[in-house]
Amino acid sequence: MISAGAERVFIHEVAPRDGLQIEPVFVPTDRKVAWIDRLSDTGLAKIEITSFVSPKHVPALSDGEEVARRIRRRPGTLYCALIPNARGAERAAQSGLDEINVVISVSATHNRANLRMDPEGSFRALREVRQVLAGTGIALTSSVATAFGCPFEGRQERAKVLDHVERLLAEGCTAVTLADTTGMANPRQVADLVAAVLARHPALPLTLHVHNTRGAGLANVLAGWQAGCVRFDAALGGLGGCPFAPGATGNVCTEDVVNMFEEMGIGTGVDLDSLIAVSRELPDLVGHDVPGQVRAAGRPLDLHPAPPGA
Amino acid sequence: MISAGAERVFIHEVAPRDGLQIEPVFVPTDRKVAWIDRLSDTGLAKIEITSFVSPKHVPALSDGEEVARRIRRRPGTLYCALIPNARGAERAAQSGLDEINVVISVSATHNRANLRMDPEGSFRALREVRQVLAGTGIALTSSVATAFGCPFEGRQERAKVLDHVERLLAEGCTAVTLADTTGMANPRQVADLVAAVLARHPALPLTLHVHNTRGAGLANVLAGWQAGCVRFDAALGGLGGCPFAPGATGNVCTEDVVNMFEEMGIGTGVDLDSLIAVSRELPDLVGHDVPGQVRAAGRPLDLHPAPPGA
Repeated sequence: MISAGAERVFIHEVAPRDGLQIEPVFVPTDRKVAWIDRLSDTGLAKIEITSFVSPKHVPALSDGEEVARRIRRRPGTLYCALIPNARGAERAAQSGLDEINVVISVSATHNRANLRMDPEGSFRALREVRQVLAGTGIALTSSVATAFGCPFEGRQERAKVLDHVERLLAEGCTAVTLADTTGMANPRQVADLVAAVLARHPALPLTLHVHNTRGAGLANVLAGWQAGCVRFDAALGGLGGCPFAPGATGNVCTEDVVNMFEEMGIGTGVDLDSLIAVSRELPDLVGHDVPGQVRAAGRPLDLHPAPPGA
Repeated sequence: MISAGAERVFIHEVAPRDGLQIEPVFVPTDRKVAWIDRLSDTGLAKIEITSFVSPKHVPALSDGEEVARRIRRRPGTLYCALIPNARGAERAAQSGLDEINVVISVSATHNRANLRMDPEGSFRALREVRQVLAGTGIALTSSVATAFGCPFEGRQERAKVLDHVERLLAEGCTAVTLADTTGMANPRQVADLVAAVLARHPALPLTLHVHNTRGAGLANVLAGWQAGCVRFDAALGGLGGCPFAPGATGNVCTEDVVNMFEEMGIGTGVDLDSLIAVSRELPDLVGHDVPGQVRAAGRPLDLHPAPPGA
């Protein structure tokens, strides 16, 4: 009776990049590597392990090369990194990752705020990145930031988002991520945009990256799945935040997403108990509590002893 | 492209009862009354204002009669209270509420833990309550606790839940609430049970009461709506908790639910800005922070100034 999507989904862990990048502390490389290795062991389909950006701008991820070199590569897990330009692509290429991800915002204002260039400049950079990657075997993918709205400009025209996707594919991207960068999406909008993209490109590996900023993160994941999306970004423990709302959450929480799908009988390939165990060490890793719910409440069938007399 | 439900939903605010009942502090009656009056002004379809239970067991709600007498009754809002037995019904009848709600768990263990009697005892109490209410014009409704699982027994048989609903209707209940008492539900299960109940009783005023204990609260609301439910319980700010998981959230957050529906273009009849304003005073009312997201992040189109140069 529920509009049903596929019976198997693929979960992409972004906490090592999207979570750590806003943390004020530098997590030591040894601990990052051990943490990513444990994440690999849970069976995640993809892990975004770092970004190759200026260490001056994101000191928390200044050890990208070393992390990429030292992590154990589990067959069945893809390892990717975010890069902004050709320089980042060169670093990524030397690190032998499976794929790199270039973020370009639909909103010009957001792109300038995020990357100090117009989207046109980012598309030029994408072309240079493609040249760097030629012959390396590293896949070129791109995230469509502010696909569901920009915190400065507001909603983006649906046609503009769809044109942006067309252009990414024309520029050689082999996979695309629709990103709800600051949690402005609603389920109807998610289903509509996912369906529109998949109607044009049924075989495109499309990923949905949603934030839980307004509490509807898992509802948006559900709507995306119903519309045909089978790939979802998420961050362990819901690590990460919203730059415009102190106290608000960022990425949807990986173990909450995995729990929802597994409870629905949808396979994720992830060992949820192991994932929860890794998540419960997060406060020790980053020095503060994180917003994920399943790590606090346990799985639904982690039963409790009945009170005396009941 | 999304499985679509009705274009109008009805939001029931339960924070004055389900939220306050677990608070260690007694919110002064004056403040409760002023708070409920402000909630009424937002246009909520129903407000559960208190419970008429033993003041010894729930001291936070020991002022139920006074609250019921002093609140302003806004036409268009129904005022209800939770009661456990005939004694509670007498108190409610004297308070002139629109309806009362009797909670009975599907799970015998949970019913004993919650009410110190078997479900059979609760059904006997329901019959006595019905007699007390006869001729008063007060509607008798019932919540099906642990409808999606019991924290002690685990999942409940679907047939058992459906039989429980049949019995409530046979006993004279005019409306029924399916309650995910400790947040064990998943969207597929919610859609299935809602659809099954509505297939048998298309005209039944069915309410869905879900908790956000595992982060899937709004996904479950969405699934319930897609399956035909148009009435949803929620608690302002996500007030309330889970007795089995310190730090885990309880009820879905009213303003997050309203925001999701309004963003989807589904009418709620609620003035969301007013609701957020009331929610932002909650920490002062209860003395601690609450988990709602929209109150922290603002509405999606509450735009931010672009940084210099962007």
